[in-house]
Amino acid sequence: MNFSRFQPLIDEVNGRINEILIGRPENLYNASKHIIIAGGKRIRPLICILACRAVGGDDRDVIETAAAIELIHTFTLIHDDIMDEDEFRRGIKSVHEIYGHSTAILAGDLLFSNAFKICHRDVFKILADASAMICEGQEMDISFEKRTDVKEDEYMEMIRKKTAVLLETAAKVGALLGNGDKEEIENLSSFGLNIGIAFQIKDDILGAIADEKKLGKPVGSDIYKCKKNLIAIKSLEFLKNDKRKKLLRILSQRNNTKKEINDAIELFKESGAIEYCTQMMNNYAEMARNSILNLKKSKARDDLLDLSDFIIKREF
Amino acid sequence: MNFSRFQPLIDEVNGRINEILIGRPENLYNASKHIIIAGGKRIRPLICILACRAVGGDDRDVIETAAAIELIHTFTLIHDDIMDEDEFRRGIKSVHEIYGHSTAILAGDLLFSNAFKICHRDVFKILADASAMICEGQEMDISFEKRTDVKEDEYMEMIRKKTAVLLETAAKVGALLGNGDKEEIENLSSFGLNIGIAFQIKDDILGAIADEKKLGKPVGSDIYKCKKNLIAIKSLEFLKNDKRKKLLRILSQRNNTKKEINDAIELFKESGAIEYCTQMMNNYAEMARNSILNLKKSKARDDLLDLSDFIIKREF
Repeated sequence: MNFSRFQPLIDEVNGRINEILIGRPENLYNASKHIIIAGGKRIRPLICILACRAVGGDDRDVIETAAAIELIHTFTLIHDDIMDEDEFRRGIKSVHEIYGHSTAILAGDLLFSNAFKICHRDVFKILADASAMICEGQEMDISFEKRTDVKEDEYMEMIRKKTAVLLETAAKVGALLGNGDKEEIENLSSFGLNIGIAFQIKDDILGAIADEKKLGKPVGSDIYKCKKNLIAIKSLEFLKNDKRKKLLRILSQRNNTKKEINDAIELFKESGAIEYCTQMMNNYAEMARNSILNLKKSKARDDLLDLSDFIIKREF
Repeated sequence: MNFSRFQPLIDEVNGRINEILIGRPENLYNASKHIIIAGGKRIRPLICILACRAVGGDDRDVIETAAAIELIHTFTLIHDDIMDEDEFRRGIKSVHEIYGHSTAILAGDLLFSNAFKICHRDVFKILADASAMICEGQEMDISFEKRTDVKEDEYMEMIRKKTAVLLETAAKVGALLGNGDKEEIENLSSFGLNIGIAFQIKDDILGAIADEKKLGKPVGSDIYKCKKNLIAIKSLEFLKNDKRKKLLRILSQRNNTKKEINDAIELFKESGAIEYCTQMMNNYAEMARNSILNLKKSKARDDLLDLSDFIIKREF
C-alpha cells in the first residue's frame, strides 16, 4: 500500500502535538517531544480519524482527540522504556538515556496530562479507562519476565490491555465523535481491538526476525529481557527434551549473550512457533477486516482496510 | 483546632478511593494504595468539599472530584519518591522500596488514569492543566539540585507549580461544582493558591526542624538531596564569609554525612532564614484568610479558616 497518502493527515496531527508541547522548563518539553520528533507511524491517530470519516464525521471533530491518543501512546512508550531498560526507540536513544530517569518519568507524565488538556470532553473517560488498562497490561508483561509457565490466554489478556485497547479506543472514539450509530461504533471498536492484537503479534514476530536497521531497535531484545511473548510461549510448548531445556534456560536468565539470543531465535524458527504466530496474526487481521466490511462503502473504509494490511505486512 | 471533626468527610473520600482502586493485577493495585492506606491528611479533598459547601453546593456534587484530586496528589508523591530516591513516606517504606521501580511508576500512572475516570466532566481540563504544571514544577525542583544560585522568585514559581496549583485547583473546582459565582470562585482560587504556598513553606520548615517521629521521614532530607528550598536559598543569602562557604559546600555535594546535615541545620537557624520563611508563610496564610473572609459567613467558611490555621501550625 501507499502509506504516504496519509502524510497530510499525519502532518495535521503532528502540528497539533507540536502546538500543545510548548512550555517551560524547556528541558522537560524537549524530553517529552524526543521520540515524537524521531518518527513513529501514527497508526492510532490515523485509525481514529479514519473511523470518524467512515461514519460520515468531519476531521475537525476528531483531530484533537487523535493527537491526544498519540500523546497517551508516547507517554506509555517513555515509561515502558524506563521499566524495560530499553536504550533505543525509533532508531535513536530513548528518553531516559538522554535526559535521565527523573526527567523521563516527568516527560511521560506531562504527555499524559496534555492528552487530557486537548481531548474531547465526550470521550475523556474512555481514554482514562484505556490508560488504566494499559497500566494493568504493562504490569502483567513485567510479571511474566520472572515466570516460565505463562499460558497463551494470559498472554492474550496482557496484549489486549497493553496494546489492543488503545487501538480499540482510537477507533471507538473516532466513531463516537463522528456521530456513528451503535452498530458502526461496535464494528469499528471490534476492528480496533482485533487489529491491535494482530499489531502486537506482528511486533513480537518482528522483534525476533526483523531487519534490525529497519526496526530501529535490536532484534531479540525480548529474549534479552526474558519477555514471554507468544513466540516464546508457543516455542516452549512445541519443543521437546533438550531443545526445550535449552530455550527454557535462555528465557529464564537475564543478560543473555548475543550467541544465546541467536540460539533462542533459531529454536523459535525450528519450533514452528513463528508460523503459529503468523497464523494467529492473520486470523485477527481477518476478523478486523470483516468488521470493517460491515460498514457502508467509503473511501475511509478502504483506507482502514489498507491500514490493516500495512500493519501485518510492515517491516518496522 | 479539632481536626477530627473532618473525619466523616475524610472517610467518605477514602471510601470512594477504595471503591475505584479495585482491580487486577493485585500487585499493581496494592502498590497504588500503599501510601494512601498509610495515612495522609487529605487536605486537598477537604479544601475541595469545603469550597463547594462555602458557595452553597452539595457534597454529592464534588466528592468524586475531591477523591480524584487526592489520586492525582498521590500519583505525584509516588513518582516524586522515585526521582528523589526517598525511602520513606508517611512513616512507612515508599512504594518503589516495596514494589520496585517499575511497579511504582505504573502505580502512579494507574492513579492518574483513575483520577480522570472519576472526576466531574466539567472540570477534567482544569485537573489536566494542574497536572501539567505539577510536572513543570517538579522538573524545576530537580534542576535546582545541581545549582547553588537559585533565586527566591525561581523558588516561588517552582512551589506555585509543584504544590500550590493543586490546592488552588481543589478550591476552584469545589467552588465551580458547587455553582459559585465568579467572585466566589476567584476568592476560593486565591485562597487555595496562597494557602498552598504557605503549606509548602511550612513543609520546608518542618523538613529542617521537625520532630522526626511526627514527620514520618528523616529531618534534613532536603539537605541530603541538595534541594534548594527557601530556607537554603535565604541562608545562603544571609550568611557571610566562612559560614556561607561551609553551607555552600554542604548544599553542593550529594551524600552528606549526618554531621554535615546537622551543621547545615545549625547554619539555617543561625542565619535568620527560618524566621524569614516563617514570616513569608504567615503572610501567605494571611492572604489566604483574607480571601476567605470575602465570602458570605457559613460553617464551611469557618472550617476553611480552621484548616488554614492547621496547615501553618501542624507538626507533620
